[in-house]
Amino acid sequence: MDMQYRVEKDFLGEKQLPIDAYYGINTVRAVENFPISGVPIHAELISALGEVKKAAALANMELGLLPKKIGSAIIEAADEIIAGNLRSEFIVDSIQGGAGTSINMNMNEVLANRALEILGKQKAEYFYCNPNNHVNMSQSTNDAIPTAIRIASYRLTQDLLGVFRTLVAGIQDKAKEFDDVIKMGRTHLQDAVPIRLGQEFGAYANVLTRDIHRIERAAQGLLVVNMGATAVGTGLNATPDYMQSVVQHLIEQTGFSLKQAEDLVDATQNTDAYMELSAALKVCAVNFSKMCNDIRLMASGPRAGLNELNVPPRQPGSSIMPGKVNPVMAEVMNQVSFQVIGNDHTISLACEAGQFELNVMVPVAANNLMHSLKILKNGMDVFYKNLMVDLTANKERCKYFVDNSYGIITALNPHLGYDVASRLVKEAQKTGQSIKEIILEQGLLTEEQILVILDPYHMTSPGIAGEEFLLNQ
Amino acid sequence: MDMQYRVEKDFLGEKQLPIDAYYGINTVRAVENFPISGVPIHAELISALGEVKKAAALANMELGLLPKKIGSAIIEAADEIIAGNLRSEFIVDSIQGGAGTSINMNMNEVLANRALEILGKQKAEYFYCNPNNHVNMSQSTNDAIPTAIRIASYRLTQDLLGVFRTLVAGIQDKAKEFDDVIKMGRTHLQDAVPIRLGQEFGAYANVLTRDIHRIERAAQGLLVVNMGATAVGTGLNATPDYMQSVVQHLIEQTGFSLKQAEDLVDATQNTDAYMELSAALKVCAVNFSKMCNDIRLMASGPRAGLNELNVPPRQPGSSIMPGKVNPVMAEVMNQVSFQVIGNDHTISLACEAGQFELNVMVPVAANNLMHSLKILKNGMDVFYKNLMVDLTANKERCKYFVDNSYGIITALNPHLGYDVASRLVKEAQKTGQSIKEIILEQGLLTEEQILVILDPYHMTSPGIAGEEFLLNQ
Amino acid sequence: MDMQYRVEKDFLGEKQLPIDAYYGINTVRAVENFPISGVPIHAELISALGEVKKAAALANMELGLLPKKIGSAIIEAADEIIAGNLRSEFIVDSIQGGAGTSINMNMNEVLANRALEILGKQKAEYFYCNPNNHVNMSQSTNDAIPTAIRIASYRLTQDLLGVFRTLVAGIQDKAKEFDDVIKMGRTHLQDAVPIRLGQEFGAYANVLTRDIHRIERAAQGLLVVNMGATAVGTGLNATPDYMQSVVQHLIEQTGFSLKQAEDLVDATQNTDAYMELSAALKVCAVNFSKMCNDIRLMASGPRAGLNELNVPPRQPGSSIMPGKVNPVMAEVMNQVSFQVIGNDHTISLACEAGQFELNVMVPVAANNLMHSLKILKNGMDVFYKNLMVDLTANKERCKYFVDNSYGIITALNPHLGYDVASRLVKEAQKTGQSIKEIILEQGLLTEEQILVILDPYHMTSPGIAGEEFLLNQ
Amino acid sequence: MDMQYRVEKDFLGEKQLPIDAYYGINTVRAVENFPISGVPIHAELISALGEVKKAAALANMELGLLPKKIGSAIIEAADEIIAGNLRSEFIVDSIQGGAGTSINMNMNEVLANRALEILGKQKAEYFYCNPNNHVNMSQSTNDAIPTAIRIASYRLTQDLLGVFRTLVAGIQDKAKEFDDVIKMGRTHLQDAVPIRLGQEFGAYANVLTRDIHRIERAAQGLLVVNMGATAVGTGLNATPDYMQSVVQHLIEQTGFSLKQAEDLVDATQNTDAYMELSAALKVCAVNFSKMCNDIRLMASGPRAGLNELNVPPRQPGSSIMPGKVNPVMAEVMNQVSFQVIGNDHTISLACEAGQFELNVMVPVAANNLMHSLKILKNGMDVFYKNLMVDLTANKERCKYFVDNSYGIITALNPHLGYDVASRLVKEAQKTGQSIKEIILEQGLLTEEQILVILDPYHMTSPGIAGEEFLLNQ
Repeated sequence: MDMQYRVEKDFLGEKQLPIDAYYGINTVRAVENFPISGVPIHAELISALGEVKKAAALANMELGLLPKKIGSAIIEAADEIIAGNLRSEFIVDSIQGGAGTSINMNMNEVLANRALEILGKQKAEYFYCNPNNHVNMSQSTNDAIPTAIRIASYRLTQDLLGVFRTLVAGIQDKAKEFDDVIKMGRTHLQDAVPIRLGQEFGAYANVLTRDIHRIERAAQGLLVVNMGATAVGTGLNATPDYMQSVVQHLIEQTGFSLKQAEDLVDATQNTDAYMELSAALKVCAVNFSKMCNDIRLMASGPRAGLNELNVPPRQPGSSIMPGKVNPVMAEVMNQVSFQVIGNDHTISLACEAGQFELNVMVPVAANNLMHSLKILKNGMDVFYKNLMVDLTANKERCKYFVDNSYGIITALNPHLGYDVASRLVKEAQKTGQSIKEIILEQGLLTEEQILVILDPYHMTSPGIAGEEFLLNQ
Repeated sequence: MDMQYRVEKDFLGEKQLPIDAYYGINTVRAVENFPISGVPIHAELISALGEVKKAAALANMELGLLPKKIGSAIIEAADEIIAGNLRSEFIVDSIQGGAGTSINMNMNEVLANRALEILGKQKAEYFYCNPNNHVNMSQSTNDAIPTAIRIASYRLTQDLLGVFRTLVAGIQDKAKEFDDVIKMGRTHLQDAVPIRLGQEFGAYANVLTRDIHRIERAAQGLLVVNMGATAVGTGLNATPDYMQSVVQHLIEQTGFSLKQAEDLVDATQNTDAYMELSAALKVCAVNFSKMCNDIRLMASGPRAGLNELNVPPRQPGSSIMPGKVNPVMAEVMNQVSFQVIGNDHTISLACEAGQFELNVMVPVAANNLMHSLKILKNGMDVFYKNLMVDLTANKERCKYFVDNSYGIITALNPHLGYDVASRLVKEAQKTGQSIKEIILEQGLLTEEQILVILDPYHMTSPGIAGEEFLLNQ
Repeated sequence: MDMQYRVEKDFLGEKQLPIDAYYGINTVRAVENFPISGVPIHAELISALGEVKKAAALANMELGLLPKKIGSAIIEAADEIIAGNLRSEFIVDSIQGGAGTSINMNMNEVLANRALEILGKQKAEYFYCNPNNHVNMSQSTNDAIPTAIRIASYRLTQDLLGVFRTLVAGIQDKAKEFDDVIKMGRTHLQDAVPIRLGQEFGAYANVLTRDIHRIERAAQGLLVVNMGATAVGTGLNATPDYMQSVVQHLIEQTGFSLKQAEDLVDATQNTDAYMELSAALKVCAVNFSKMCNDIRLMASGPRAGLNELNVPPRQPGSSIMPGKVNPVMAEVMNQVSFQVIGNDHTISLACEAGQFELNVMVPVAANNLMHSLKILKNGMDVFYKNLMVDLTANKERCKYFVDNSYGIITALNPHLGYDVASRLVKEAQKTGQSIKEIILEQGLLTEEQILVILDPYHMTSPGIAGEEFLLNQ
Repeated sequence: MDMQYRVEKDFLGEKQLPIDAYYGINTVRAVENFPISGVPIHAELISALGEVKKAAALANMELGLLPKKIGSAIIEAADEIIAGNLRSEFIVDSIQGGAGTSINMNMNEVLANRALEILGKQKAEYFYCNPNNHVNMSQSTNDAIPTAIRIASYRLTQDLLGVFRTLVAGIQDKAKEFDDVIKMGRTHLQDAVPIRLGQEFGAYANVLTRDIHRIERAAQGLLVVNMGATAVGTGLNATPDYMQSVVQHLIEQTGFSLKQAEDLVDATQNTDAYMELSAALKVCAVNFSKMCNDIRLMASGPRAGLNELNVPPRQPGSSIMPGKVNPVMAEVMNQVSFQVIGNDHTISLACEAGQFELNVMVPVAANNLMHSLKILKNGMDVFYKNLMVDLTANKERCKYFVDNSYGIITALNPHLGYDVASRLVKEAQKTGQSIKEIILEQGLLTEEQILVILDPYHMTSPGIAGEEFLLNQ
């Protein structure tokens, strides 16, 4: 059976395309031009662009610019796209030249042809419903696409935040669960002074809570959209009534507190909202990676490492070493973090390359931003379920390190001074005696005083251990 | 004349040092260990660390931990440092191992020896005033240094913001001054539709205003300090009274709304505040660089370029080409931007490398952050004075481009449709006729209609040009 | 119809999996653990891993370690994978914890089950052919995966180089074609001195030729493989005979000049070969992006820009502006470049995170490297076909700029001195006279001398124009 | 006493400057324009630019373009600069607009005024020796500055390589010294199989040797200079004889195998040589950082960490914790690495921003490149002397880990199979028995076989332990 074709035409010439295709000539040209990454447009962006098109059609109809019949068909078609239909018709690559013109036209063409079908017309009978004149009415790629990117990214951010809050709650649970696990604090990877494992997990929860706030705050910038800006932000070909109406419809459609930018020229050429959110994700990725590094260190061993934590076994860790289990969930989050940090770099480069009224590099920036949002969300979800929930501590092992290290000597400073305390450490290292033995031998403190001063649990809270003796001095 | 020496001792051994040195053995060791960059510690950090030491001494004295006489001498010495004295005694490199221990000890030693002098003692008679026991009392490098970094960086940020606000006001002035300069808007560097030069400068002012807000917001994180955390955030050797008092003294000393971190373990190991501010600077740098690129493009020529703007001549632009003048102030700000973006990268790497209770990579992170703050401030200051204030527009040249381009045809879309308008462009290109001639020849619109629809000034505000004709359709 | 299941077991417990699945329990665990990016493993990596498994089986058979019957079945199965079959069985995510254990086990399991089928056994009858004992014999993830990554990346690099060389030849053709197009050279975007458009394209070809050499050289590092290293590079469980044989088989299989690393411990833990290639790609991306920026500037306009070049129209450039055509192929290559640069960043981060005997972050590094290789190749291919081949110059426009600029005055320096020449420019700017008129008026040179000295064509080659007059001085 | 002034003039107007200044009006303008970083031009760049000026003067004299008397004075002045004199006259900032015009003119002016002095003239009597006409004769900033940057960077690279080779030799010595230290190999930070500490240091030496080769290779690109290119690479105002001669003089002056670029247009606009070298430094920094991370991990403890290595104590590690010693030399190299990686980013950004015939962002790129070269060199030097030379191993501790871990069980695979071996690990973990006990209890192997198979030393070389028993199977 032969593939059947129809022919479409634009001011550059003609193109053959499959007779049943909902997409049109612009899409075909884009596919020829950009066979770059093989990665399709994010599904969330397609949905959001459907919402944009629907809102524009509603506004245009209301104001009598778009005939009711055509408008209704476009809206019906847009609702189908939003519901997830016809997705195989969106065939342009996620990396594309033209600032998103190709994905905008892919959408305009699919909606026009689906609307034509609804109207009982043949595909490509664009006289009755035209991708540019009707579907794209009062719009430009330069306002429709950034608006859709913002809606999609905002939605993805909300998804991420939901997962993230669950994870942080899980870490806080661990902070409580581990509150009585005394362990050796480490600075420079060297034995420092005692701390509680719960305090460490509390610190992870707190820095990540700040990350949540940073991401929440940065996401606000996405709510400012430039619908109505048209080509360069001046609003040419968009009436003031439309400009007001379209944003109102978008708010109803999405449920988000969108606002039209006060300065549409600014909002059309600048991409700082993407960078701001990506930077917040980057900071989060760095903090997350640090926590994963700590967890992997604490879970190191079991025999030739620290072995303070047990990560739940998730898969055999080696194709050759029997019984080996690796902290794979922490490892994958390190990698997610590295990807997010690298993506941030790509985004900054793309944003710096804007020129005059537009940043044509937006496709790669938006694609990286959405990618970062998704992999962080997916990663945090499994990190929570597959690692955090079932993480356990080796309390005895933690205690062993405290009992066997010199770090507790810091508590002697207020009593003996830094120099004497330093000397004691050296003597203990040389003789193999315990600090306590030497102190007693040298009559520096009484046994009772030592008991109070060197109690590791007390060292994990503020205060001078044995302050009572000190004041007696 | 022979250099005279004194000998100091620590638990690692002895070192000779110049007899008059205020610094001590720790400083000498650090100088031997870290002859890395040749760049000294930022002066602002030394001042801020002086403030930290003064506040600690005040708190320790108040609580009876530090004898009045010793404390008063330390405070007098600290005041001298804050005032800018003895700066040649701070000789450790800005890149150093040890998480800042070396700069902390450099300060402790200088203050101790200067205090000894004030007390009428010889240098190095540390029995009477000891760098660790007295100057560093109730502190650790791990709280004193981050606190000083935050104070110094906050102060530098305020300086930057002052300059930045002046610059943005200057750009806003230009937005007003250029409000009547109609020019061709450009997307993809291709002729788009008309815009006013004032709108472009308004957009620059607006995105940079957001940058000011981002930087202001990010700087808030610096106000949360970990004084009282001591070694790992547990507050070992710091009494609760001291912890409260020291921050109060710091507030009085600096005039900043500092707050003690609620979770000192978190605040001691995490460096997200630096990253957050650096990320805000990075976003700003990207936006700034984009504006500089635009300005350089608009000032290109004078004969073989766009020549829409005249940048004030600041220096002969070439050692070989006579009369050449280059946009050097924009060029230097591009470079400042690139440095800030690269510094942000270094900061992220350093912050990711924290482990357990401390991030030992803080020196390089703090150094890059303060460097970014300073070069942005210095650069914006001269960019304002040497470029923005005297920037002028070539109004005629801008008008010429509008009059000679096809972009205005977009205003015909609502009247003739996208396809007809596209055809007109092609015909105009082929025949050399103006769009207007062709429209009249083909009887598509009347002369009166054309005058209204193709008025470029109207195109720079929202609306469908000639909407009145449209509604008659 | 109900899905039917079988149960598999490992030392962590049991898992249900589809009865027909070729993959096994390790794969199922990995899918549960890593639903991160939704992006599958690069097809080229799967093929290369198939080659690795085949070579190992051949070597093991030869040495009598692997029974012939089992070995032959594994090889038959591997050949099918290499040929592109069973690809839907490779279901683990491209971002995964565990240093590639999951993709290695996915392959081991698919091969084992397919071999079992070939042997007339049921799936999962691993007694007859075991994923670990037979398919993975003498191997570890830690040698099999890096070796496969190197083979896949080397092959992708060769593909890239093929396309790249064609493109550079195309640019060289343009250099010849444009050799007689005199245009204004620009430095700082300001009019400098004349140059030929062909010289500019020659420069693009030359810098990209260096990029080809850099990539070729960097790819050599990929040819050094660590097969035989097993778990940590010591070769435990791999016999010296096997170690020699397996690389020989790989060479035959791939046709590449592979070499076994002399130090397998080094080769197992270090990832500098990936970084080295990625760095070469980054340098290339930067150079490419600069060229694209130039092309977009030269193609700017057509009326309100430089308009020196015509890029072939590939698609309507706007959904709203009729007749607009954008340089989309250059834009997409800028974006590809930004992605490659960002990927390089991710790769560096991943490579820095190696610890001791292994870098567990290899999956994200390898994935980004292969992604960069592919998008560069795909992008260069369409950039060549859709832009470079049909690029044309506007010779008259280029000449117009030369004739109307002051830059040519530089040729007067040797005759009149820099200061006099500078004064002439200022006078010309003020009076509107041409440089020539002023020179004649002031009797500085004769008409004949001016004709020779100010000939723009001569200025595009080395030499002092009118040197003959100079020597007469 | 009043400061006395002289007045100089250029085509933009007049400036007052200190009467004794060797610099001139261009320098004063640059200082006013670029008070950015406060960091002066690298001393090595000033020397190299002195060499460039001397070579140009020699070539110009030879060809009769420059009068002997003036030329000789310029050369004498240049020799003084090269020797390190008059350095306080170089007052322009290291970050500057104008592609280096300011540092070039600073040099031209200092040389002209010093030459005037030598000629017995007053400063600023430029009629007798002019900064542009005589000192800058046949040159442009656009060839003189890149050439000087390359010479300075090449020299710094050679310095770095010298230190680097010494360090690698030191690591190789440690590889030998530690060759008999059996320790537990770790993958994923989890116990893997035995390895020798010497093998680990051998791997460090080998990857760093590749870095040396990468840097050596990348430095070759610096030897290709564009002297003779003048403004845009066409060689305008430079005679072919001069072009040949000047490079010959530079070779004699520097002792480096410099070559003139075959395509001077290419060499003038492209900056890939800087990127290529910086990328090699970045790869090196990543590898170095990984080694430092390993060393810090192995030196962790002493009681609550791995404690396999003893880093030489270099300074007290804490202002509060007595007796604490930190691996500060490794920490500072991590930070140097982060700075080098961030610098590489700045360099890439600057290089991407080149436009047409020139990259005006070269000052920031060159400054970062030279900074990276210097801090790497300085850092490696002290890392070698202060850490590597006196590094020692805790042999007993290393052995303890091997004896107490399950990793050795991998050697049982060929004998018992992966599944049985995995089961043994689980049983050992549950019962607390040793692997050996269980094997004997279950009659899986004889005691003699176990002794051979589980010998950790043998496991650190290729082969199947107990292959003789295997073949008997």
